[in-house]
Amino acid sequence: MTKRNILLTPGPTPVPPEVLRAMAEPIFHHRTPRYRELFREVSEDLKAVFRTAQTVYTFTGSGTLAMEASVVNFLSPGDKVIVLEAGKFGERWTEIAKRYQLNAIPLKVPYGEVIQPDEVERVLKLHPDTKAVYGTHCETSTGVLFDVEAMAKFVGKTNAIFVVDAISSLAADRLEMDAWGVDVLVSGSQKGLMIPPGLAFLAISKKAWALHKGAKLPRYYVDLASYDKSLKDWDTPFTPALTLVLALKEALGRIKKEKMERVWKRTEELALQTREAMKRLGLELFAKRPANTLTAVLVPRGIDGEKLVSVMRDEKGLTLAGGQGEMKGKIFRIAHLGYITTSDIQMAVSVIKETLAELSRQSSPKVQV
Amino acid sequence: MTKRNILLTPGPTPVPPEVLRAMAEPIFHHRTPRYRELFREVSEDLKAVFRTAQTVYTFTGSGTLAMEASVVNFLSPGDKVIVLEAGKFGERWTEIAKRYQLNAIPLKVPYGEVIQPDEVERVLKLHPDTKAVYGTHCETSTGVLFDVEAMAKFVGKTNAIFVVDAISSLAADRLEMDAWGVDVLVSGSQKGLMIPPGLAFLAISKKAWALHKGAKLPRYYVDLASYDKSLKDWDTPFTPALTLVLALKEALGRIKKEKMERVWKRTEELALQTREAMKRLGLELFAKRPANTLTAVLVPRGIDGEKLVSVMRDEKGLTLAGGQGEMKGKIFRIAHLGYITTSDIQMAVSVIKETLAELSRQSSPKVQV
Repeated sequence: MTKRNILLTPGPTPVPPEVLRAMAEPIFHHRTPRYRELFREVSEDLKAVFRTAQTVYTFTGSGTLAMEASVVNFLSPGDKVIVLEAGKFGERWTEIAKRYQLNAIPLKVPYGEVIQPDEVERVLKLHPDTKAVYGTHCETSTGVLFDVEAMAKFVGKTNAIFVVDAISSLAADRLEMDAWGVDVLVSGSQKGLMIPPGLAFLAISKKAWALHKGAKLPRYYVDLASYDKSLKDWDTPFTPALTLVLALKEALGRIKKEKMERVWKRTEELALQTREAMKRLGLELFAKRPANTLTAVLVPRGIDGEKLVSVMRDEKGLTLAGGQGEMKGKIFRIAHLGYITTSDIQMAVSVIKETLAELSRQSSPKVQV
Repeated sequence: MTKRNILLTPGPTPVPPEVLRAMAEPIFHHRTPRYRELFREVSEDLKAVFRTAQTVYTFTGSGTLAMEASVVNFLSPGDKVIVLEAGKFGERWTEIAKRYQLNAIPLKVPYGEVIQPDEVERVLKLHPDTKAVYGTHCETSTGVLFDVEAMAKFVGKTNAIFVVDAISSLAADRLEMDAWGVDVLVSGSQKGLMIPPGLAFLAISKKAWALHKGAKLPRYYVDLASYDKSLKDWDTPFTPALTLVLALKEALGRIKKEKMERVWKRTEELALQTREAMKRLGLELFAKRPANTLTAVLVPRGIDGEKLVSVMRDEKGLTLAGGQGEMKGKIFRIAHLGYITTSDIQMAVSVIKETLAELSRQSSPKVQV
């Protein structure tokens, strides 16, 4: 019934067959030794992916839930926070901060641009009472990679915690939570972890835990104190999304076998392959500092970007992502993370070439691709 | 690898094979016409199960997330609410209310007992400034069914909204949202809807929507305004748990074919069969007003209730639920909802009989079963 369609979006990403099969196993109860053993295993294996010795907490919810959790668990109303904004997901940090009446200082650059680490240092010096800095590792809406390692050095010298949205970059772009000194790392399931959407993760440093104790923002479902208490018995305070945890076990097994260095390298190779191919097609890359997670490409003048994406998806069996926020219709985005291969990218390149040529002929005889 | 084990817990409940298979389909992207058609279909079909003409909203999260959503979306700090407490899940309403600095008036009875509807009327008269009444349809921790229909009549005469936790009772015990006048109905996926855990639902009356406009409690991930805006295009504000939505479509198709009246009748028959069988074994039922969703049975004196449950699960292939909260070790609970058949119940009865006899012999020669 379902036509074959290559999925190259930066989340959800394709799910390996053995992971899909794991979800079709008969259901069992979560308040059992069997579940606790499963949850112990995935919670331990997640640490290797987060590159941390700290606990990784699992929520049932989308990545945005974990973003909200990393606000309400550490702050009190009126607290000052610096928010790095360079795209739709940076803007989301600001939206959440405003909802919780935080004093949010934006450090903002246009879509596609990158925030320099010494800018973070400068703003931190202007605001020594900053409680937290909210940043993004890979800004999925633009394909830009932030230099989290350098930024973390500056934040680490202050009392502020550094909270990083690594929803799309985890298990794609190199990310070293402990070695770099990231305090709170947020991620989701439907990206480099290669499982369907529905789980979100949070890893927390000791510095962040200390802040948690005095944090007065109200919370219930995402209160880390409950998760921490339950996790001592490898349990969750509320019913977990069992099928996704089963899927996670399979996917983490795959990553463990391949090893993180190789995962990063493989993703980098796909990114390089894509960037080269796009340049050969005469297309312009959008991100000033491109991530390996995904490549954002400017839609050539005269072509309707939304139509480009829908024609490829509905007629040619290739799902890419279009632009988000203010980039709607202006870029398309090709993912490299997770269960994506070099032949998927080859197929994508030829479909992009073919579709751009067709649309150029239709829209204006002057556009050359 | 997995030994066969009959799952008769009041969530998660067994998942029909075609629903499991739907989750193993290749993943696709949610910002597509294909997803919007799927989501339109399940959102419409959910109305028939909730027995409402109102919109049903779907969250990625556990039922507790939807409980929290039905607090933060309708109230402001200091608001007065009446909370009906007769077990662990009633207590959860109070916990959430306290976290959000509400003025919570408890209407409390011991575990196993039922709150009379005229008690709700009496407390409402004492507190005419009540903004909301939080109740439970089936208190899963005790197996008691509340008379939501009668209570709704009293609440309906006031300015307060009636918020009902129907997490376990939906598609199990008769529940008529619109006809009874329930304002907010909360449910989850892993119960009567027969899909794995990970989705939570909220249906909302016009009276509740009016309260939403002025509600000042902070919220982001569960803010109904975002869901309502997205749903106009059959979309969600944040990445949905796609595999579970696919599962939901299959499960709702099953329910639609069977029809709600028949679902309720079938569940009732299993409940009657169980209660009769338990009485024949000389066992005492715990709930003063038993739900059809599940049957709670007192563990006979001299038997360790936790051991009873673990022996049945680990040695005899039958997973029942033990007691929760203060009933830990004192009761066991047999579910009747969803994809459970009369032969599952027969098997359960014979395993219970056999295991009780074995444990009685071990623990004390005086205990007779």
